[in-house]
Amino acid sequence: KFAVKSRQVDYEKQQQQSISPSRKSPNGQLPPKVFVSHSIYKGKAALTVEPRPPQFSTLESGAIRVSKEGILMLQFAPATGLRQYDWTRKQVFSLSVAEIGSLISLGAKDSCEIFHDPNIGRSDEGKVRKLLRVEPLPDAVHNKFTSIEESIYVPVTKAEFAVLMTACNYILPHLLGWNAFANSIRPDDAGRMNNASSRSGGESEWER
Amino acid sequence: KFAVKSRQVDYEKQQQQSISPSRKSPNGQLPPKVFVSHSIYKGKAALTVEPRPPQFSTLESGAIRVSKEGILMLQFAPATGLRQYDWTRKQVFSLSVAEIGSLISLGAKDSCEIFHDPNIGRSDEGKVRKLLRVEPLPDAVHNKFTSIEESIYVPVTKAEFAVLMTACNYILPHLLGWNAFANSIRPDDAGRMNNASSRSGGESEWER
Amino acid sequence: KFAVKSRQVDYEKQQQQSISPSRKSPNGQLPPKVFVSHSIYKGKAALTVEPRPPQFSTLESGAIRVSKEGILMLQFAPATGLRQYDWTRKQVFSLSVAEIGSLISLGAKDSCEIFHDPNIGRSDEGKVRKLLRVEPLPDAVHNKFTSIEESIYVPVTKAEFAVLMTACNYILPHLLGWNAFANSIRPDDAGRMNNASSRSGGESEWER
Amino acid sequence: KFAVKSRQVDYEKQQQQSISPSRKSPNGQLPPKVFVSHSIYKGKAALTVEPRPPQFSTLESGAIRVSKEGILMLQFAPATGLRQYDWTRKQVFSLSVAEIGSLISLGAKDSCEIFHDPNIGRSDEGKVRKLLRVEPLPDAVHNKFTSIEESIYVPVTKAEFAVLMTACNYILPHLLGWNAFANSIRPDDAGRMNNASSRSGGESEWER
Repeated sequence: KFAVKSRQVDYEKQQQQSISPSRKSPNGQLPPKVFVSHSIYKGKAALTVEPRPPQFSTLESGAIRVSKEGILMLQFAPATGLRQYDWTRKQVFSLSVAEIGSLISLGAKDSCEIFHDPNIGRSDEGKVRKLLRVEPLPDAVHNKFTSIEESIYVPVTKAEFAVLMTACNYILPHLLGWNAFANSIRPDDAGRMNNASSRSGGESEWER
Repeated sequence: KFAVKSRQVDYEKQQQQSISPSRKSPNGQLPPKVFVSHSIYKGKAALTVEPRPPQFSTLESGAIRVSKEGILMLQFAPATGLRQYDWTRKQVFSLSVAEIGSLISLGAKDSCEIFHDPNIGRSDEGKVRKLLRVEPLPDAVHNKFTSIEESIYVPVTKAEFAVLMTACNYILPHLLGWNAFANSIRPDDAGRMNNASSRSGGESEWER
Repeated sequence: KFAVKSRQVDYEKQQQQSISPSRKSPNGQLPPKVFVSHSIYKGKAALTVEPRPPQFSTLESGAIRVSKEGILMLQFAPATGLRQYDWTRKQVFSLSVAEIGSLISLGAKDSCEIFHDPNIGRSDEGKVRKLLRVEPLPDAVHNKFTSIEESIYVPVTKAEFAVLMTACNYILPHLLGWNAFANSIRPDDAGRMNNASSRSGGESEWER
Repeated sequence: KFAVKSRQVDYEKQQQQSISPSRKSPNGQLPPKVFVSHSIYKGKAALTVEPRPPQFSTLESGAIRVSKEGILMLQFAPATGLRQYDWTRKQVFSLSVAEIGSLISLGAKDSCEIFHDPNIGRSDEGKVRKLLRVEPLPDAVHNKFTSIEESIYVPVTKAEFAVLMTACNYILPHLLGWNAFANSIRPDDAGRMNNASSRSGGESEWER
């Protein structure tokens, strides 16, 4: 298990480096940030998936809405030795909610390709681009996650894929911020809700 | 990404307009309202889904029950230009929990039609009605969501449909208010629960 | 919608009657009880499903465990008129977690029968028994939920069945009390967890 | 029901014995530990599944990350009489997240074998090992969970398997600690999130 720990230290270092001072909470008022991920370590490369939260903004009314949906970061790192991975050479793929939809709707024999271009809609569109390809392997129990930039790929077993899909299905509503809505449903606001009810006529589907 | 932001501003404006003063919390005692949604933007129209919470009432005993199940609002807006949508001409379709059940039970080749009539059970029943139609497209990877009032339709990819279905499955128990029940399960009320236990004989399936 | 409201009042009355005084919280210290359910109203009968929480007990160590798993109550009431149901003649079927498993694992063409006997394991076993039967209807889009005691049955559409199954899948881990475990996972107990870690060797799968 | 209670007492005793003093909260500041499980009792043996939480550590930045993923303990106990099981002879199998993935991705006709070796990577690798085998039974409605150490097996009906799978799917994201991430998403930190936003450019997929 030693090798595993050393990998985790690598990953932790990488995480700490990417945390800017502004994220620290000097006065301790804010709850601490929580980083979670899930990694699949294979002989030639490792794949880590890590969700990033949605962002919210406050309306003039005091109500809150989602201003930006969360994402799922996929990170590919090449192996440099037995159970050692070089995270400085990592390739990062940031999946939007719709792109996560592509993953979770993959049939057993389906493959999908996702292209990203940092210059999309600009004059230099197409000069640089990334490709994530997920495809079944001939043995039928593996999928192959490939980041095409420098062609790092990770074979993923049916069992590992099931874990990824369960995690994706779990996290997706949170990336949409729908858990914030769910948590705002408070039965002890019964009176308030009734007020809302008397008001809600103006929002029905029959009035514009 | 500029165009996307301008769309979001449109949507935000629309939201703010529909918030009546009564929803503001003048004294800050109530937690803020949270609005969440998910939108699919296409060339000719956009589709936004947005959950609305259930309502609760307090019984004489002090217990709380759901008085009205939540809904899922579907809003269709026609495009007025490249990535611009006219939300003032939106068509709204309010799905009940049972109607959400129609969506989440759709097989890959199934279609469903949902009719709404504001005058149902009254003398002018049938004079006005709305139709939401969800049907597969011939390319087999798209569904077509159509609001028939003025026939706005939005093609929805298999991946986008998967996101909608995951969101619907997530939110449905919350629209039923079952999360309020779930949250009321407190292991630290162990003593109280035991009291409830000694009482529960009167509620068993064998006594009337 | 008027008729629906009157039905809900019936159901509310029924609920209030079944609440014994011991459930009231005289001093307001306890959070209020929350009752949730979901009903399917049909021409000849109505079916209501309602979860009941698990019970917990405290070990000498101060830790908490589930002492009794929760259940799902199914209530059948015959119709007495247009959208009027006689809840005094209701038939109640209390589903254990394993019996809920029978429901959620039903294939589209499967049926299942669940027998209950209040005298099981006693000399008068078999004298009284209840049968719940869930079976597909020939139209392929309905299931039939039948309580055999006095043969009340409710046809349930594929969409309504999907709602029941989503609600069952949601609530099942809560009936097991696993959400209490989930909620007890606190990242801010990091130090404590590490203590637990140094201790956990004694619980590994390799030592008895 | 008497026999069931006696079994639960057995299990409770076993639990209490395995709780070391360090887990007690002398000053009452920590919330109590919560133990949950689910058991399947059969004629020759019983199978209990019980989740164990992930562990967290605090980074220098004050942020929190998962240092060790949670597991699912499977415990097999042989029957010693009618509804009596000998937990002192229990066989324990500790499933990692990836191994849970093997279970939840099992097709109706699939089987899987999971090997554990306490000496893996050491000179005495292979001298001791455990095998968990899950396979379909010929009657097509049962699976067979076998712990090979001393060959204890438990036949599991389709309904019981559905309960296990629902519980596994529920708990898996919690074993990854992703619920801690989900709970850290707070819409009332809207301002903070926006700060995070202005910072997040340095973490995008296009910059290294």
